Order: sequence, then C-alpha cells, then structure tokens
Amino acid sequence: MFTNEEQAGVYKAIFNRRDIRSFLPDPISKDTLYKILEAGHHAPSVGFMQPWSFIVVSNPDIKERLAWAADKERRALAVHYEGEKENKFLSLKVEGLKEAPYTICVTCDPTRGGSHVLGRNSIPETDILSTACAIQNMWLAACAEGLAMGWVSFYKKNDIRDILEIPPHVEPVALMSIGYTDQYPDKPILETAKWEKRRSMDDLIFLDKWGEK
Amino acid sequence: MFTNEEQAGVYKAIFNRRDIRSFLPDPISKDTLYKILEAGHHAPSVGFMQPWSFIVVSNPDIKERLAWAADKERRALAVHYEGEKENKFLSLKVEGLKEAPYTICVTCDPTRGGSHVLGRNSIPETDILSTACAIQNMWLAACAEGLAMGWVSFYKKNDIRDILEIPPHVEPVALMSIGYTDQYPDKPILETAKWEKRRSMDDLIFLDKWGEK
Repeated sequence: MFTNEEQAGVYKAIFNRRDIRSFLPDPISKDTLYKILEAGHHAPSVGFMQPWSFIVVSNPDIKERLAWAADKERRALAVHYEGEKENKFLSLKVEGLKEAPYTICVTCDPTRGGSHVLGRNSIPETDILSTACAIQNMWLAACAEGLAMGWVSFYKKNDIRDILEIPPHVEPVALMSIGYTDQYPDKPILETAKWEKRRSMDDLIFLDKWGEK
Repeated sequence: MFTNEEQAGVYKAIFNRRDIRSFLPDPISKDTLYKILEAGHHAPSVGFMQPWSFIVVSNPDIKERLAWAADKERRALAVHYEGEKENKFLSLKVEGLKEAPYTICVTCDPTRGGSHVLGRNSIPETDILSTACAIQNMWLAACAEGLAMGWVSFYKKNDIRDILEIPPHVEPVALMSIGYTDQYPDKPILETAKWEKRRSMDDLIFLDKWGEK
C-alpha cells in the first residue's frame, strides 16, 4: 500500500510533468540517468516483449546533427501553416536538443520476441504503444528527480537512423532531451501559447457506449 | 521539488505496477475512478491534441460481450502456438473483463485537433503514442490507489467498435479492466510463467550510436 505522501508523489509527477524545450548545461549524475532508464525498462509491454532500447547521446557533434534534422523538418512543416500559426510554430525551439546534457533516442524493435508475440498478433502497433509507456515512465521519473524532459517528434525517421546508425527495421520512436531547467511552466507551453485549449473531462468520458453520458 | 517520500512513491508505482487478470467484485468509488481518468487526461500529447476518450463500461451485458470478443480472438490466436506455449497461452484469463467492476475502453481519435496537428505531421502514429502515455498514467494512478489494472489487447477492433458503438475512424486502443484484487504478484505474470525473461539493462543501453557501449 502507498502512504498518503507516496500517493501524492505519483499525482504530483503526473500533473506537473511538462514538455520542456530549454535546458541548463548542468550535468546529470550517471546514477540518476540510470534510474530514469530503469523506470523506462519497467514499463508494461505486450507479451513482455520489452521492445525498447535507449541510445544516450552526449557527444556534441551528434547532438548538433540531431538538432539539424529536427530543424530541417520544422522548416518543412512550417510551410503548411499560415499567418499567426506559422509564426507560433517557428518560434518553437529545437535548440533543446543541443542544450540538454543528454538526448535519449528511445527505439522500438518490432522483431524482438519473435514472430508471434502474445497480443501483438492481434494489434501489431502494441509494440510502439509499449515503448510510449516506457517514455512516460521515464518522464515521470525525471520529474520526480527535479529534471526536465522534452519530447521532440519533428524529424524524418531515416535521418535519425542515419545519424545514430539505427538498423532499418528499428523505429526511432522519440528523441527525449533531459536536463535541469530554469523555465518550468505551470501549464503546457502549447496551452499558454493558445495553440490548443485543455479539453473538459466531461467531454472525454462516456458511460457504457460511445456518446452516452 | 519532490520530498524523498514523494519521489519514492513515483518509483514504487513504476516498479510495482502489474498487469492483473483477476479482480474482486468490490466496488470502486466514483471519486477514485475520476482521479484515475484525470491522471490519464494529463498525459502528454503531440500538439496538445488530447486524442483520448474513455468509455467506462460497468453494464454486465456489455462486459460480457467484450469478454466474448476477447475470448474469440484468444482462441483464434492459440492456433498459432503449439505444444507447451499453446497451453500457457490458453490459460491466460480474459474473465477479468467480466469480474472487474469497470472496464475502460481507451480510444484515440486521429482527427482531433484538425488536419495539421503539430508534430503529427511528421510522425502520424504520435496520436496513439500519446494515448499510450495516458494509459500508463492511469495505470500508475490506479497502483497508487491500491487498485489493479489489466490491459487486454486480444480483440478485433471492429468487434469492439460494434459493441461500444465507436465511430469507424476512432481507434479502440485498449481495454483496461480495473478493480481490487487479492492476486497481486511481485513479478510480471509472463515472467513467472517463463514466457519471456526480463532483459538486462546492459543490453538495452547504447552510447551515442546504436550498438556502441
């Protein structure tokens, strides 16, 4: 059983976790980094396939190339927005990839566990869903450690495969930058920037069937 | 900042969360259920699209139909296993869907947020990855509340759409049964059943490039 304070800690991490784009250069201890990776490895996975790997990037040249790939994709995507949304979009930072002491590429190997992974036979994408659960565990652990994380999802997967020498069948699911920050907002950056509003819980919950209240 | 006990609570939830298949009939308070759904709603989402909805099933007839769909798929999948693995596979329970006071169908609407959701333009599956983060939040919150959850991923999505009247473009990502249990194992059920071993952390971590240590 959880004490009240332990339980409060879980909700505190869930409600205060933010997607952070600005990092201080302060180093992270190896022990703390390991704890966060271990939290990722304790995610649920379909058929216990544990499809994730973690490429921990600290080499400045490689971080620079990752930032280049993300910036290239950001500029390509910006073409699809017009006016105010384009400006808001272009103001989003990818420099976090260079600033943060570590960027972790979280990958998913769909072949791990063999041809007939239990559960994945029905819903093949459960492998990347498991990997997303690992990412969420890492994010909450980082939050509990007083660290900030940012999930960059602007890139062409083959650029990341080229830079990090990832085999073609392995998916680079996320680039997670991690570090200390002095810019930790109360609300999601995209909510404050009025990109999107937080939806009301009432609109998201149905009883017994879709659309029923 | 987190106190030591709050931080310990986060890791306790991460390391003790288990996929549970047996539930007691004891009811769950509405307040606790709401807190768990709210934890889900506070997951990260690409472009803040918040693609999830939660269909909370408590009607026994509908739970029975969900269990029927899962059992049908389980029997179909069992054909692909032979010998000992088939027996282990068929011993997996889907009755949890009927036993648990609630089964929550967590869905993902890929159209939410419009045609150009920030980040989803690069990697379309980030919508279901966001939904998986919501599921992980719910699971950890349930654990902190002393509750058990089980993720059922054996089903044909269209069976679940038919039963719960989910629109064709919305993905039924997971069926999450939730309740109290008297069977809460230390280790994953599939690890104890020797279906798969837990992988060593050393095999999962690379430095700067895939395959480098």
